[in-house]
Amino acid sequence: MVGLVVVTHGGAADCLLDAVAGILGPLPAAVPISISMDETFDETLERVGQACDQVDAGAGVVILVDLQGSSPYQACMAMLDGSRAVEVVCGVNLAMLLKLATIDRREPNPPELAQVLRDVGKRSIRLGSELTGRVPFEEITK
Amino acid sequence: MVGLVVVTHGGAADCLLDAVAGILGPLPAAVPISISMDETFDETLERVGQACDQVDAGAGVVILVDLQGSSPYQACMAMLDGSRAVEVVCGVNLAMLLKLATIDRREPNPPELAQVLRDVGKRSIRLGSELTGRVPFEEITK
Repeated sequence: MVGLVVVTHGGAADCLLDAVAGILGPLPAAVPISISMDETFDETLERVGQACDQVDAGAGVVILVDLQGSSPYQACMAMLDGSRAVEVVCGVNLAMLLKLATIDRREPNPPELAQVLRDVGKRSIRLGSELTGRVPFEEITK
Repeated sequence: MVGLVVVTHGGAADCLLDAVAGILGPLPAAVPISISMDETFDETLERVGQACDQVDAGAGVVILVDLQGSSPYQACMAMLDGSRAVEVVCGVNLAMLLKLATIDRREPNPPELAQVLRDVGKRSIRLGSELTGRVPFEEITK
């Protein structure tokens, strides 16, 4: 089964996995890494590496991180060193993690799984007015 | 200035706004609503309504919620009752909130602002391998 590491600025990683656990049950082989503002890059790098070791049972790891270009993102990207099968998904949101609670993680490899998560994540970003067909107030009053 | 309400299952709403505060400074006129599993729909509805009242200075509100179709989402959608200018964005992630720290919220109306956030959110969801040009391990070893 592909392992999961969720990396965020502040406590969101823990909150996101707790939310999934509350909605659909706990995700197996998933580790949250909530990064504090005073953490050094080397500390983050070590924590991400240890988490990958912890969840990788041989099928590799998908790392979900909140923000492309950030220091935590750089630590995640350092895992793409060829030492194991890893893919990084930037822009993590709850829909991606819920998908992980229902998809079979034994079949796809990390790049395949990451593509599914990317597509689910993008599709999950919608406007309320698109979903109801209701016309927003500002459009009516313009 | 358009007000902001961030609504999530569990504590992610608070964590996301704290992360923005840590990276770019606190967002003005923004209220997090972290919803516990044992909260009733009516309680959520009341909290979302009160938060909208709190942040709406006359220019309306954008509500960012984590998950389309969920009970918290239904509470957010109930704000689209025509009583004020509101738009809902589903699938909240950190990139959207950071955009809100840099965009001028006095000019766009809620639907216009929500469209910007939707586009930023979708663009922020990327694969690490797309960003480096590096070929994932599984592709190499396939």
